[in-house]
Amino acid sequence: MSDEKISTYLATLGQQAKQASFALASLTSQQKSALLQTIAEQLAENSARILAANAQDVQAAKANGLTDAMVDRLLLDESRLAGIIGDIDNVINLADPIGKEADSKLLDNGLRLTRRCVPLGVVGVIYEARPNVTVDIAVLALKTGNAVILRGGKETLASNKALSDVIRSALVQHGLPENCVQLIDSPDRAIVSGLLRLDKYVDMIIPRGGQALQRLCAEQSSIPVILGGIGICHLLVDKKADLNRALDVIANAKVQRPTVCNALDTLLVDQAVAQVFVPKVAAHLHSLGVVFHACEQSQQYLNGLGFDVTPAGEESFSTEWLSLTLGIKVVSDIDEAIKHIRAHSTGHSEAILTDDIHAASYFMNQVDSSAVYVNASTRFTDGAQFGLGAEVAVSTQKLHARGPMALDALTTYKWLAWGDYTSRK
Amino acid sequence: MSDEKISTYLATLGQQAKQASFALASLTSQQKSALLQTIAEQLAENSARILAANAQDVQAAKANGLTDAMVDRLLLDESRLAGIIGDIDNVINLADPIGKEADSKLLDNGLRLTRRCVPLGVVGVIYEARPNVTVDIAVLALKTGNAVILRGGKETLASNKALSDVIRSALVQHGLPENCVQLIDSPDRAIVSGLLRLDKYVDMIIPRGGQALQRLCAEQSSIPVILGGIGICHLLVDKKADLNRALDVIANAKVQRPTVCNALDTLLVDQAVAQVFVPKVAAHLHSLGVVFHACEQSQQYLNGLGFDVTPAGEESFSTEWLSLTLGIKVVSDIDEAIKHIRAHSTGHSEAILTDDIHAASYFMNQVDSSAVYVNASTRFTDGAQFGLGAEVAVSTQKLHARGPMALDALTTYKWLAWGDYTSRK
Repeated sequence: MSDEKISTYLATLGQQAKQASFALASLTSQQKSALLQTIAEQLAENSARILAANAQDVQAAKANGLTDAMVDRLLLDESRLAGIIGDIDNVINLADPIGKEADSKLLDNGLRLTRRCVPLGVVGVIYEARPNVTVDIAVLALKTGNAVILRGGKETLASNKALSDVIRSALVQHGLPENCVQLIDSPDRAIVSGLLRLDKYVDMIIPRGGQALQRLCAEQSSIPVILGGIGICHLLVDKKADLNRALDVIANAKVQRPTVCNALDTLLVDQAVAQVFVPKVAAHLHSLGVVFHACEQSQQYLNGLGFDVTPAGEESFSTEWLSLTLGIKVVSDIDEAIKHIRAHSTGHSEAILTDDIHAASYFMNQVDSSAVYVNASTRFTDGAQFGLGAEVAVSTQKLHARGPMALDALTTYKWLAWGDYTSRK
Repeated sequence: MSDEKISTYLATLGQQAKQASFALASLTSQQKSALLQTIAEQLAENSARILAANAQDVQAAKANGLTDAMVDRLLLDESRLAGIIGDIDNVINLADPIGKEADSKLLDNGLRLTRRCVPLGVVGVIYEARPNVTVDIAVLALKTGNAVILRGGKETLASNKALSDVIRSALVQHGLPENCVQLIDSPDRAIVSGLLRLDKYVDMIIPRGGQALQRLCAEQSSIPVILGGIGICHLLVDKKADLNRALDVIANAKVQRPTVCNALDTLLVDQAVAQVFVPKVAAHLHSLGVVFHACEQSQQYLNGLGFDVTPAGEESFSTEWLSLTLGIKVVSDIDEAIKHIRAHSTGHSEAILTDDIHAASYFMNQVDSSAVYVNASTRFTDGAQFGLGAEVAVSTQKLHARGPMALDALTTYKWLAWGDYTSRK
């Protein structure tokens, strides 16, 4: 598309979304639940059509030589689709934050003031080839009265189109504008840049994807962006840690799902226990398929034991591995560990294992990441695990929402004040 | 400065601020109060030096032909300085949000979870030639444990330097890094662009200035920005308004302080009362010095009455007047008023005057601005008026903070979780 065509297209999209958002903002919780119920039903009824569209995407992906892992990520089958539909029930059952009022008070100036929770308005979401995100995000946005503009990976365009068509027809059935949910159906990358400048209509951008996408959004967007989902996560084995119980927690953090953002990237070991613990933990992790990037000191404890050890280079401790690789570094004490974390962390999740209550509390106070753990795996940083009932994204920035973001993060507030023809003194 | 020099300078500034922020984050409320107390005392003790520096700025401003209004804005005298110092006492007496915990719970997965309020870290503030902002912002930032990087208007560099020197020496007296407060003392504009890209070290940017600065920050910043302080404010005189009592409220909104963001810009009048009310309110405002940009219909009611009336053009209803000019537009009903507000508002403050409870509630629900008033002047949108005790800025965006921002807006939270060597299932 030409630049002019893109900007006309996006302006129309934006206007339609903003207009639709006004209709959504005045729905009651009951009306929104009924809408989500219909969406769930219609997705189930149209599953054959959705799976057929997905089969097209899968075929194209294979033809284009995508890796098995990538193909698996975009694949829908009956059970996965049923899972996505089942999740809608969970969202229906969550409390609706919209309309709640806080900080209500009668002011000295005579006004009655309250702060009411309202939808953000229009949310733009840019994501990769995961068709489940199309439904997840649309449903969470509608639950909180927001219109969405969706830009999914081009590899899942047919699937996303089938899914969003069903959602749009459910909206119409409920007398709502279909443009409450709009899918950008052109793969043109210039559209993403244009979307990031649509601040006249879009209130928030959520990029759900890797570092390059996050960076693009941070640098180009004139709309507030929620950055997140990039985790260089640390776990410190303190000198007072229970070295036997530590093994399972570290294995869980590293191995349970190595491709996700809350998986462990760097293991820090206090030098007081390093000589004993480093070979011990390496043996345990090696048996689970883990390979190592080790600092000089830990290499001394690992060499010749038959593990796969690479000397840690400049970049080893600044890498989100997303694989069965683990950085290992021996630190002189908890302060060196904290210093290392401050220098290398992305602010996602960090943990300490220790039986020393002072060390635990010092670590919690000094480490400034969105989630800080004592004697637990970093893998818990997740909306469901935190009891939030949903997850829009995991924010690693400090404004608006931090860590797992749930329904509240899709809302803002307005101040309402009542007077009696009241003027300011 | 060369580009390279600027980037080295800013990186040093950023590193120093980040480092200093760690020291601030672990202060108790008592320690912070003692620090603010010393700052207040030292500002009082150094008032001669501060006023002398300000006299330099004033002299230069006059020599450079700044308007009287601008010179007055940057002027400090004993009573203004005493006012600034007095405000520090108010901040000391505010509740410290840092350390408060919320949403604490024991999770099904065995973790004990809490959400603790913590400082943002490093806040960058870009502002115009108002030396009071230097102290206000530094004090609010320190109260909430944040380091600040200040970039004030070049016209007040000597004043800002004198003020920040005193604050920095108070920090040292309390054993804290002086770099908790840093002032950019070069007028080079390229530094602003560089500061907006310092996302490695700076957690939030607050631009306190006009539309051009807000736009620059929105477009160039890779750091989350709080936009605000631009208000195209509307007031609707509903057909059921008390037309006599309305006069004072409208005069208050327009005339009390016309140069500020919460002053009234556009008066909307329901056509059912327009013929009676438009000449009446115009006469009242005319006597107070107000001139008008009137829509076609209101011109009919105003022509020949001796008021200063300009036909409203394309831009009249998209202008923040910041002066004694008022747009007047007759609307067919409340829905047309809401439509006009949605099209022209900057999301700051809007009001309805009405005795009809249904109209009041409809207007409140449908108008999506940071502050919405029934039977009150728009002039109340202000931290002190809202009982917040302080005002960092007035946000017109929807993320993080909306409307008057006080101490809470300078904080974020982190999630803390305790397990017993707990792994995720």
